Amino acid sequence: MRIPILKLHDCLLISIQWELDDQTALQFQEDLLHKIHETSARGVVIDFTSIDFIDSFIAKVLGDVISMSKLMGAKVVITGIQPAVAITLIELGIRLEEVMTALDLEKGLEKLQRELGD
Amino acid sequence: MRIPILKLHDCLLISIQWELDDQTALQFQEDLLHKIHETSARGVVIDFTSIDFIDSFIAKVLGDVISMSKLMGAKVVITGIQPAVAITLIELGIRLEEVMTALDLEKGLEKLQRELGD
Repeated sequence: MRIPILKLHDCLLISIQWELDDQTALQFQEDLLHKIHETSARGVVIDFTSIDFIDSFIAKVLGDVISMSKLMGAKVVITGIQPAVAITLIELGIRLEEVMTALDLEKGLEKLQRELGD
Repeated sequence: MRIPILKLHDCLLISIQWELDDQTALQFQEDLLHKIHETSARGVVIDFTSIDFIDSFIAKVLGDVISMSKLMGAKVVITGIQPAVAITLIELGIRLEEVMTALDLEKGLEKLQRELGD
C-alpha cells in the first residue's frame, strides 16, 4: 500500500486516513521526498485527522520526513493531530519544533499559502 | 487498501495513483458516497493522472460511482485521463456523459469551483 500525494499548485497534500504499517510509512517517506524533488513543491500539508493512534516507529518516521522535507526547502504544516497522537509524540520526545500546525486541511493550506506569500 | 478522500472546503479530492484491484474499487465507491453524505460535499474531483490502464470491472465501478455521486447532488470532475484509459472507457461503452473533465487536479478544482459559484 502507498499513500497518494496530491499536488495542488505548489503544495503537496497528503491525508493519512488509516493506521500506517512500518513498510507503508517508509515508502511514504521515500515517495514524499521524491515528489518534492520532482514537482519543486514549496509546501507540504500532512493531515492526520483520521488517525487516533501512532506507535513509536511511525512517530519517528513522521518526525524524520518532516525534517527531511524542510531540508529540501519545503515548508511543512501538519493538521488534525488528535489528543492521543499529540501525547504519544511528546512522550516519545518528538517535538516537531518549528513545524506549523493547523486544525484541519483547509486551515493548513491557507496557513501555508499565507506563509509562501501567495 | 483504501483510497484516502480529502475534504477541501465543500469539495472532495481523490487522487488514484496506483492500479485498483476490484475490492479497493468497491471500497472506494462505498467510502466516497459515505463521505459525500457525511460532509455534504457539493463537488468531487477524481484525478487519474498516474493511471495508465484500467480493466472493464474498474471502469464500470468508476462509471457507477460518478453516476451515484451525481444522484447524491455532487458535481463530479475527472482529471488527468490518459490516452489508454480514454480508449478503454469508450470501447467499453462507458461514456461518462455530462461529467466534467480537466487536464489536471488544479484545473479540475478551478472548474468545479467556478461551477459551484465560489
